[in-house]
Amino acid sequence: MTPAQTAMLDRLRPRLGPGGIVTDRALIEPWEEDWRRRYRGHAPALLAPRDTAEVVAILQAATEARVPLVPQGGNSSMVGGATPPADGGAFLLSLRRMDRIRRLDAGAGLAVVEAGVILERLNDAALAEGWRFPLTLGARGNATIGGLVSTNAGGTQVLRFGTMRGLVLGVEAVLADGTVIDTLAALRKDNRGYDLGQLMIGAEGTLGIVTAATLKLAPAVAARGVAWAGVADPADALALLRRFQRASDAVESFEILPAETLDAALAWRPQARAPLAGRHAWHLLIEATAAAAAAEAPQALLERVLGEALSDGLIADATIAASEAQADAFWAIRDSLSDAERAQGPAAQHDIAVPVDAMPRFMVEAAAACDARFPGTRASGFGHLGDGNIHFHVRAPRDADRARWYAEDAPVVSRFVHDLVTAAGGTISAEHGIGQMKATELARLAPPGRLAALATIKAALDPLGLLNPGKLLAPPRPAE
Amino acid sequence: MTPAQTAMLDRLRPRLGPGGIVTDRALIEPWEEDWRRRYRGHAPALLAPRDTAEVVAILQAATEARVPLVPQGGNSSMVGGATPPADGGAFLLSLRRMDRIRRLDAGAGLAVVEAGVILERLNDAALAEGWRFPLTLGARGNATIGGLVSTNAGGTQVLRFGTMRGLVLGVEAVLADGTVIDTLAALRKDNRGYDLGQLMIGAEGTLGIVTAATLKLAPAVAARGVAWAGVADPADALALLRRFQRASDAVESFEILPAETLDAALAWRPQARAPLAGRHAWHLLIEATAAAAAAEAPQALLERVLGEALSDGLIADATIAASEAQADAFWAIRDSLSDAERAQGPAAQHDIAVPVDAMPRFMVEAAAACDARFPGTRASGFGHLGDGNIHFHVRAPRDADRARWYAEDAPVVSRFVHDLVTAAGGTISAEHGIGQMKATELARLAPPGRLAALATIKAALDPLGLLNPGKLLAPPRPAE
Repeated sequence: MTPAQTAMLDRLRPRLGPGGIVTDRALIEPWEEDWRRRYRGHAPALLAPRDTAEVVAILQAATEARVPLVPQGGNSSMVGGATPPADGGAFLLSLRRMDRIRRLDAGAGLAVVEAGVILERLNDAALAEGWRFPLTLGARGNATIGGLVSTNAGGTQVLRFGTMRGLVLGVEAVLADGTVIDTLAALRKDNRGYDLGQLMIGAEGTLGIVTAATLKLAPAVAARGVAWAGVADPADALALLRRFQRASDAVESFEILPAETLDAALAWRPQARAPLAGRHAWHLLIEATAAAAAAEAPQALLERVLGEALSDGLIADATIAASEAQADAFWAIRDSLSDAERAQGPAAQHDIAVPVDAMPRFMVEAAAACDARFPGTRASGFGHLGDGNIHFHVRAPRDADRARWYAEDAPVVSRFVHDLVTAAGGTISAEHGIGQMKATELARLAPPGRLAALATIKAALDPLGLLNPGKLLAPPRPAE
Repeated sequence: MTPAQTAMLDRLRPRLGPGGIVTDRALIEPWEEDWRRRYRGHAPALLAPRDTAEVVAILQAATEARVPLVPQGGNSSMVGGATPPADGGAFLLSLRRMDRIRRLDAGAGLAVVEAGVILERLNDAALAEGWRFPLTLGARGNATIGGLVSTNAGGTQVLRFGTMRGLVLGVEAVLADGTVIDTLAALRKDNRGYDLGQLMIGAEGTLGIVTAATLKLAPAVAARGVAWAGVADPADALALLRRFQRASDAVESFEILPAETLDAALAWRPQARAPLAGRHAWHLLIEATAAAAAAEAPQALLERVLGEALSDGLIADATIAASEAQADAFWAIRDSLSDAERAQGPAAQHDIAVPVDAMPRFMVEAAAACDARFPGTRASGFGHLGDGNIHFHVRAPRDADRARWYAEDAPVVSRFVHDLVTAAGGTISAEHGIGQMKATELARLAPPGRLAALATIKAALDPLGLLNPGKLLAPPRPAE
């Protein structure tokens, strides 16, 4: 520990109380590595504030001592966004002890939630009041509200409810100099200058530390319908989505996967059964919900639109889950795709988006381009067609050496995929953020003027570079 | 004109072509004053670019010559936000010639629209394709998309669709140094750092010049129901709103007005008729719509919920418009309120918001506090109860001298009202912005740390202070 770090802890010790400063290696180590074990860093201390005032004290002390801080919630980043640098120069700032649901307003349908509250717990609390928090994702048992806000998280309900940005009504955050920004009052209209709360969303902790958020709730689901359909290609899938959108706004998930991905999922979980009897090139998982009895029943909506699509030949086959158990079984297939693909061997994974209308063509053409450019690999995408966001995976050749492929080949593949996405007007990070993983690629591909503007804002709000160093706007490393 | 201004025009003349530089006084003068004739400035030239490249050229020339620019659309600001300073130091930058609808995508339900397109024209174009742009306000025949984005405009449909911020999917803007920020691709998910497009929304042209936006459309209305109800007080009105919201998301307007405001409107337009026979302390105008035949008919929804509320005694009376003509007549009353109140004499007007649940109490208590503090005045509020946003007017005593009251008394009244709003956790600008009118009050009432953060961002992106000087973040003037 440097003298400055020691001095900072000495200053904070009387302020934070027991448990607020952790230096026990055994307690810190689990948080020094990301959950997928791709990034490992070192933090000589982990600070764990209990409230916003303690976060202010920590940032003031960090500014005085010039010690950088790496904010961390559930440590479920997909891009190494919450892992400290390796040199031990930074402390971890864990928000996990700030875990109060300050208010759950069942009249207005909103909740004021601290950064450390875990997604699943918020949703359970909302359900108890007749509401739900309409954002969910695989890490819902670990991911915290602070991290979800800071990464503008997405998931499987974005089609209807938007990303985190669309669900955040206000933010409480602490800037590097200790200034508290507070827009928690959740005014539906407020035009008093730049929206600093919005600026914190998706900033990955590089502009300020999100300590709480006011979140929009949605009425709890009264009824849902879940369908599985087989289609010839992604273009037909998109045409079906547009039919649903013209008919209703009740569809909240519209997921696509190719036959080979379904095969992998069925092979990986022997208890899983194929939802449709025949063989189809592409599969769709569709969920519609209704909150109130007055609206058209979701199952009826699915029957009506899918029935017409079958008559028209737009889709090849479809089935509607006859029970909640069957609906859960459909979703279990979807939820297993990442693990099932991982079990097939090394793969370069890409969380990408293009405009929704461009996605069907991109899925087909990008896969073909990858297969042609990297013989022996196999490319395919699955995921959130309704959001124009798929997880595009390029699997290594069967005989590839795992370590060598990840070290040498995968980066080349990823640059090729990112070039394709950029050429299609898309993004190299749809919902996972930039973190450490994609900072170099962002620097390579973003328009220089845009990068300069990002750096200008970062320098203005964090002039000493203390907040989550090396993330998002890392200095470009020399070309490999 | 200063030598620097002359040099800037000389540099731009070959670039902009005829019509791009206006120096004819008769053509400039109408744009030097706001539409309500409260602010008057002077601009030695008006620049009128036709495309984004010309805006870039103008900003580069302005940066070189150090000449500030005041962006202007329809000149319908309520707060002097588009009026040039009086000293003639700035040029007007009119976006009105950038009036192309670049794309209207009837499949995806979005439009890419240049800054100078007038709101009404966009809506008409959308209607022709089976869509609508779900934001409307009194100035719809003048207000431009660029101004609506830059002021995060609201209106009467915010309850269902949100403010402009909720409808903007992407922005094209030019920064002071000529950098073009382009997020028009309208990716539904994009986590590549700070959202610069979002930062331009509500920035009132002080951070960059908005040149185009990608906007979300909503399906055209297939059926609507419009109701008028009488209630005892605003608390009952809010309870009724919550019933509607639990029943459906079809309600898009929920407007409140007190009896005296209705009286003023009926007096002002002799052809207007009171919608209800009896006398009620408070009145509500409620509109519900449906886009598709499958949903519950809006009239049926209104009948059901209002019928229950009548049985329960929550409301005193209600009527549902039996025809489109009657629905229009209800709305004509609402649309005439500002003019009707103005006809009653001088008044201090305040565009304020508090959290929705706090509004019923605020409406009653703030009016009583004003009446007590300023004997002879009469305070009341009307407007968007569902957004927690009302227009709170304090009318001058009957015998007040108009000029003297506006000059001396109204500012005192406004400070009192703003103090009440701030104490209630609300905003002194709900939907009109800050402009010149409220810059001093913002400086007086905003938390110093927040103000400093706004100024830091402004200085970072516009270090020479060339963009819309004197608006939003005006240096505090000496106390009066």
